[in-house]
Amino acid sequence: MRLKLHTAPGTIGLATHIALEESGLAYELVEVDFGASEQTGAAYRAINPKARVPSLVVDGTVLTETPALLVCIAQLAPASSLRLPDDPVAFAGVQAFNSYLCSTVHVAHAHKRRGRRWTDDEGAIAALTAAVPATMAACFEAIEADHLEGPWVKGERFGICDAYLHAITEWLEGDGVDIGRFPKVEAHRALMRERTSVRAIAAARTRR
Amino acid sequence: MRLKLHTAPGTIGLATHIALEESGLAYELVEVDFGASEQTGAAYRAINPKARVPSLVVDGTVLTETPALLVCIAQLAPASSLRLPDDPVAFAGVQAFNSYLCSTVHVAHAHKRRGRRWTDDEGAIAALTAAVPATMAACFEAIEADHLEGPWVKGERFGICDAYLHAITEWLEGDGVDIGRFPKVEAHRALMRERTSVRAIAAARTRR
Repeated sequence: MRLKLHTAPGTIGLATHIALEESGLAYELVEVDFGASEQTGAAYRAINPKARVPSLVVDGTVLTETPALLVCIAQLAPASSLRLPDDPVAFAGVQAFNSYLCSTVHVAHAHKRRGRRWTDDEGAIAALTAAVPATMAACFEAIEADHLEGPWVKGERFGICDAYLHAITEWLEGDGVDIGRFPKVEAHRALMRERTSVRAIAAARTRR
Repeated sequence: MRLKLHTAPGTIGLATHIALEESGLAYELVEVDFGASEQTGAAYRAINPKARVPSLVVDGTVLTETPALLVCIAQLAPASSLRLPDDPVAFAGVQAFNSYLCSTVHVAHAHKRRGRRWTDDEGAIAALTAAVPATMAACFEAIEADHLEGPWVKGERFGICDAYLHAITEWLEGDGVDIGRFPKVEAHRALMRERTSVRAIAAARTRR
């Protein structure tokens, strides 16, 4: 099986990148140059017409959307740290957390620089950007109170929810949110930064 | 197994409601009164702190987020019309479509009446509302061109993607989008409106 991940530093692609490292599967990494707007160019749109990252190409089939990619990688590596619960209700809990990140938390973050997705009005775009520290803090209040069981998202065992949460947690500082308000999230970030997978990704970037 | 769906008419809860009808599983329906803002009241928040619908209670465990619920119901009823693909890559295709609906299409729609999620600025909220016909049309251009294989989302067989798409397609008219621009979507809506599951839900509402 050939796996190729198209991603860019600082994006949500980090979640899938962590999952691939955790999986033990061999994969090829392709960096999309956001500085040169490569994601909206014809070559990348031929891979992913949505012009977003990540895209994961599995034996020639292009897959997108982080919640889908994380589950797919976990299913392809059932003996890894990513192992999914067999019980449909427990699996739905994993999926619900990931879906909340993708449809609510990531969307809150996107209003900082991507307001143009929802309006052309410059005043409105500025207002959306200004609200991001408050909306992201509200999301992490909910994560701290209701979702992060600790030490990992689903309790005692690491899983795909942790890769996903970590990628978004790393946005908090840039979004003007003090992580110190959320002790469980801060402890989760520390654990994640120490994982072999996350360190390997950081070290590879430093070398480039 | 006891299943109880908390939902409200006109919401994305319709997707899960259709899936329950298709599953053949017994379930109880609880309507949340949005007119009385019941979804933000203490009683409902005790079920779902996110104050949204749908919530699906499975033997006392509360599950949320439409993509998670649809897969869960399909897994609980593997002999039904909802049967999921066994292949992880094909399953990722199902999940990617549902994730696109939840994080992009539903979010575009939400900017019509729920702009307050992302700003308190009244001018900005009005600008977000005004842009919804264009952003929803852009989403459905992508669905028509890239995602809806036809006649069903994933080709020849009905599945959970169809329940989800239908719930959102039914918002188009209210969002100021002419469905006639999207022939495959319009044909999909016609097929869905004829399904026994969708007719049963409509008939039950008429009786109340």
